[in-house]
Amino acid sequence: MARNKHPEETVNLILAVAFRLFMEKGYEHTSIQDIINNLGGLSKGAIYHHFKSKEDILVAVTDQMTAESNQMLAVIRDRSDLNGKEKLKTIFKESIQRPVQNDIFTVAPNFHNNPKLLFSLLHDTIDNVAPNYILPIIKQGISDGSIETDYPEQLAELILLAANVWMNPMIFDSSEEESYRKFMIFSQMLQGFGLDIVDSEILDRLKELTSIYQKNK
Amino acid sequence: MARNKHPEETVNLILAVAFRLFMEKGYEHTSIQDIINNLGGLSKGAIYHHFKSKEDILVAVTDQMTAESNQMLAVIRDRSDLNGKEKLKTIFKESIQRPVQNDIFTVAPNFHNNPKLLFSLLHDTIDNVAPNYILPIIKQGISDGSIETDYPEQLAELILLAANVWMNPMIFDSSEEESYRKFMIFSQMLQGFGLDIVDSEILDRLKELTSIYQKNK
Repeated sequence: MARNKHPEETVNLILAVAFRLFMEKGYEHTSIQDIINNLGGLSKGAIYHHFKSKEDILVAVTDQMTAESNQMLAVIRDRSDLNGKEKLKTIFKESIQRPVQNDIFTVAPNFHNNPKLLFSLLHDTIDNVAPNYILPIIKQGISDGSIETDYPEQLAELILLAANVWMNPMIFDSSEEESYRKFMIFSQMLQGFGLDIVDSEILDRLKELTSIYQKNK
Repeated sequence: MARNKHPEETVNLILAVAFRLFMEKGYEHTSIQDIINNLGGLSKGAIYHHFKSKEDILVAVTDQMTAESNQMLAVIRDRSDLNGKEKLKTIFKESIQRPVQNDIFTVAPNFHNNPKLLFSLLHDTIDNVAPNYILPIIKQGISDGSIETDYPEQLAELILLAANVWMNPMIFDSSEEESYRKFMIFSQMLQGFGLDIVDSEILDRLKELTSIYQKNK
């Protein structure tokens, strides 16, 4: 392992191993030593060269998880060929169609052991994703007439809280049937705001994902 | 302090002091010694007689917080003079009208420092409050025709997630204006499910509570 030549690769390896262990054992029950034991010969010093503490690693892991997702959101937010409602629909499609979702569902992760990860996800959702990605789209939708609400900030938060937290199988362990029923209520909620964005293609993919997750539990 | 004669009073005092310190300093930054220092002469041994650890105290504090709330929910759930929709409306009114709410808002608490409290509240909301208190009411509403949904379990969860977590000023620090706007979106969401349960009395009380909270910050 050429840790000095390719520091980015070392960091990515540490984060990948840490992510897997946090998911499998829980953050609280994973030690720095556990991470080292799974790094194929990397020393404790090499880890501490990149991260001051286990909490530092956790922050980097969650940052990496959200960075990719935010990149996808930014691309859709900045498209000029879609109205506000179409952008929301595209986001939901892309969110559940990315191949990485299969991996996340395959790890059979367990946020139940990870109050800090959940906390971080919850606050990132409300403090960052809602205002920077979903709010501009809802505001566009108000301008172009495709979305109707007097409270765009709060609608952005409520949609994300339901989609990213409540419907997240990493947080609330749902059966395939329960996930489907959550999605149906979510869809009914969106319709109440004039947002008919759920179609059969989205529902089929959702069933496929929950099935993958259940098999790997 | 007659700690041996009245063990319940001792426990209640410990919980009251611990609750205040957890809220003011955060759970992570409160030590058992901090709690003892605020107990007016109670010894470390006396605390450990009742609680094995700081985490034990946290569990007891949150249990106490939810026990009172659940008691109120049970009374309304079991009333025979209201239909399902009226019970939901009564719950929202009572939840925001209880005097204890003033105290909670006056502490100017801060769940931002308390991932474990948030986690516990979130899972109690979904795993206990939704199925045991709100679900039976929604099922009654489906029977008596006052509530229409094919997914009562999921509707119960979504309503509580919004009301207990998202709209909780102890979790998300909202200005008076923001709290009001969250409530308006929540009310619009409920209307989408045929639940027109928000009236001017509820809105007035909500403004009063958020004003108390802002003053004490």
